[in-house]
Amino acid sequence: MKDIKFDEKGLVPAVVQEGCSGKVLMVAYMNAESLKRTVESGDAWYYSRSRQELWHKGETSGHFQHVRSIAVDCDADTILLTVDQIGAACHTGHKSCFFRSMTEWEKTYTGNLSMLSDLREEISEKRVHPTEKSYTAYLLQTGIDKICKKIGEESSEVIIAAKNADPVVKDTSAEADNLRLEVCKESADLLYHLSVLWEDTGVTVNDVMKVLEERSHVKGNKKTVGHLDKTF
Amino acid sequence: MKDIKFDEKGLVPAVVQEGCSGKVLMVAYMNAESLKRTVESGDAWYYSRSRQELWHKGETSGHFQHVRSIAVDCDADTILLTVDQIGAACHTGHKSCFFRSMTEWEKTYTGNLSMLSDLREEISEKRVHPTEKSYTAYLLQTGIDKICKKIGEESSEVIIAAKNADPVVKDTSAEADNLRLEVCKESADLLYHLSVLWEDTGVTVNDVMKVLEERSHVKGNKKTVGHLDKTF
Repeated sequence: MKDIKFDEKGLVPAVVQEGCSGKVLMVAYMNAESLKRTVESGDAWYYSRSRQELWHKGETSGHFQHVRSIAVDCDADTILLTVDQIGAACHTGHKSCFFRSMTEWEKTYTGNLSMLSDLREEISEKRVHPTEKSYTAYLLQTGIDKICKKIGEESSEVIIAAKNADPVVKDTSAEADNLRLEVCKESADLLYHLSVLWEDTGVTVNDVMKVLEERSHVKGNKKTVGHLDKTF
Repeated sequence: MKDIKFDEKGLVPAVVQEGCSGKVLMVAYMNAESLKRTVESGDAWYYSRSRQELWHKGETSGHFQHVRSIAVDCDADTILLTVDQIGAACHTGHKSCFFRSMTEWEKTYTGNLSMLSDLREEISEKRVHPTEKSYTAYLLQTGIDKICKKIGEESSEVIIAAKNADPVVKDTSAEADNLRLEVCKESADLLYHLSVLWEDTGVTVNDVMKVLEERSHVKGNKKTVGHLDKTF
């Protein structure tokens, strides 16, 4: 911690990322005391530049940030916190402070992995507050046998799509593109039903990621706070 | 863009996140001119505080950042760039500048979704540079029939594990925890083999995420640069 380069005001910017989704939530500033309190307590503490005082994030809103890891960048003048965010990070009620797009670029789909986290929330919401027209609510209410039948069906459809796309993997024609798109669509169906199965059995996509991580050679240098790392 | 609040030096911090993995790569600073060039060119331009000059990221290293979206935070004094990173973001050769952990907290597995991106790279590497002992290389060399057989097998094992875990979903005993862990392990097996299937058929996990995103109600306010958004 003694290596951190605070600026002329004694501050260092901290990027805050949500662990489960990978979303960048906010950027705040820390002085040495707030960094010390963060490390010691496992809760995020910042220094408010406007109020010129230490700021225990969540103390008034209840929207605490439980810190899972702290990384420092190559030149030690920026910090990256990975957190479990209670409620919303932004005072506006948005999960992330970065909710506004700055450009007029055409809206398309981004392909971000955070979709799996959004999907989890969406499915969980449908379990807690089922609606009549919701297919997710129907699956969860009908129960595990129905969900498992769909896993069998969707995995078969992935197999069929892969058998069709495999021979044209090096082909750049529109027809080959369509066969690849079929692989994506059937895989999306399978991932959706897997997510419903996870919700039904009480596990999360992040629990599954942990198993993959444990097995992978790509482990990196990741550390988490012991008591926050719920393994089972 | 005229709403951005530059600081007393005319700069605004920009957090840079990799689109495909969700990894936070670096934080750099922009002045009005670098922001203008970034928006116009679709490549990231910063202002180097040490060299006091405009800095076209990648111009010397080749490690360009193709910008997919630009968001601004609630009080308009920080920018979030989502990019396709060519090579490594850090001058040390690390993908991300945040490669050092600052704390002595016990190392455990984080459960981050970026694992799926790491897995994709790992599998792709094994296709390009197969090694004799690699199971991934074996699968890819043996071909699509073998991969599809594994999808069938692993999805069946997910079904069996889910059937065992479903009755104890509200149970907090160690036995129930073990049954949930089985669901995670079998799901991890399935996701791994799915990732191999995607590699074999020339699609990526991010392509699959796009399909999910398109179907989801959780679309948010995401924009990407048209020409960088490869749909097929």
